[in-house]
Amino acid sequence: MKIALLQTAVVADKEENLRNACACVETAAKNGADLAILPEMFNCPYSSAYFAAYAEEEGGNAWQKMARCAAEHRIALVAGSMPERCKDRVYNTAYVFDRAGYQIAKHRKVHLFDIDIPGGQYFRESDTFTPGDAITTFDLEGMRFGLCICFDFRFPELSRLMALRGAQVMIVPAAFNMTTGPLHWETMFRQRAVDDQVFTVGVAPARDVHGSYVSYANSIVCSPMGLVMTRAEESPCILYSELDAKQVADARSHLPLLSARRTDLYSVEER
Amino acid sequence: MKIALLQTAVVADKEENLRNACACVETAAKNGADLAILPEMFNCPYSSAYFAAYAEEEGGNAWQKMARCAAEHRIALVAGSMPERCKDRVYNTAYVFDRAGYQIAKHRKVHLFDIDIPGGQYFRESDTFTPGDAITTFDLEGMRFGLCICFDFRFPELSRLMALRGAQVMIVPAAFNMTTGPLHWETMFRQRAVDDQVFTVGVAPARDVHGSYVSYANSIVCSPMGLVMTRAEESPCILYSELDAKQVADARSHLPLLSARRTDLYSVEER
Repeated sequence: MKIALLQTAVVADKEENLRNACACVETAAKNGADLAILPEMFNCPYSSAYFAAYAEEEGGNAWQKMARCAAEHRIALVAGSMPERCKDRVYNTAYVFDRAGYQIAKHRKVHLFDIDIPGGQYFRESDTFTPGDAITTFDLEGMRFGLCICFDFRFPELSRLMALRGAQVMIVPAAFNMTTGPLHWETMFRQRAVDDQVFTVGVAPARDVHGSYVSYANSIVCSPMGLVMTRAEESPCILYSELDAKQVADARSHLPLLSARRTDLYSVEER
Repeated sequence: MKIALLQTAVVADKEENLRNACACVETAAKNGADLAILPEMFNCPYSSAYFAAYAEEEGGNAWQKMARCAAEHRIALVAGSMPERCKDRVYNTAYVFDRAGYQIAKHRKVHLFDIDIPGGQYFRESDTFTPGDAITTFDLEGMRFGLCICFDFRFPELSRLMALRGAQVMIVPAAFNMTTGPLHWETMFRQRAVDDQVFTVGVAPARDVHGSYVSYANSIVCSPMGLVMTRAEESPCILYSELDAKQVADARSHLPLLSARRTDLYSVEER
């Protein structure tokens, strides 16, 4: 399976973000990608001032444009994340469409990003968002995927449970910043890949040093042995990567981690 | 608390290994260390041909020498690991002595290292060892420590459970090799530190390129924010590091990970 990571530039104009996202999806499809992945909040500046104002219900304008775009170009699409309105609540939500444009999965960010590093970053997603309450996996064209959003991936329980559901690839629309990005981004994607013996895929918005929230960018794919297969820099770009399920099987066979867990001593369980 | 990582050279002569270990402990004590840590299998070549032959019961000659060494130099000591005989079984065991030479904890490796990487490494610990059946934490002079051995640290459930027991430091006598070391060693110590918001300490034997098992060495200390505080190369050496519990508290306050776990969605539990 060939995947395309769409490291798009996010601007204040929602419609322009949607047009740009569709243009990138089209390019990815023309280049033979089977699955395209958009970043976290690809249609909305990452700022508490915008989330509620840009939010739409599932099935709304942005959702429809993404579904149609997938169908038109016959490519599966993880529509990164966008603010979702549901009754009086707002969620940070990623939708997944198959090549026919049907929604086959949906993830609402379950761990909201509240951080306060002196001299570094301050941000409180929980001022605006309601957290989701489900762990998300889906099947697509013979492979099983886990899907979570940014801060979700910091919790090894969540990735472990996706792996135990059979995920071979973990897709993470995300937007680390200039504090946590250089410190933690690559290490996290490498180590989760090793621990859970999966491909890990992080897709971030391009860096805009004039934005209120400066994305670290550096979209990345790691192999099940923890090697960086491809990694972007800060500019808008499309990265391509071939994911071969055999690499997952080989890692699990050569280095028995998932199978060597001492489940008689500890357990990780979904509640 | 000042710790000393004793990256010793391991030779075939058991008594020479014990003498060398004691000399290093003495040096660490003279340099003001509060706790000295020896590597995995510091008194026995890392080879299935040696483990059973070198094994002794708890309280045996090697155990006594280490206890006496701690007491004599008034320094706490994690006596890395050594093969332990108990009835007809052999364990890979680390003993912990306080400054008075009393044993305050003991860990038997719970995940045995069985690996088969084509073109890389083949090793089966389970041919010789019986696995332990307990998760190990202990208190020493105002700080709480988790203790596990090498392959144990590959399992995020184990480190998470040590953190949930209150560990602020995780001590890992270990001996990665020239396949897994360059691939995984540093990333693992950095990411576990970040995930569990603890200091992580890996202590390995020095590299002997003529040994049957070539240790990667590279003993390491990482901060609770995932930075490498100190790291050895391949030669015998003693590394020193200051561990300040405030760094643990600060990491947990600035970047809420342990506290932001969605325990309503998942659980990690000791059985």
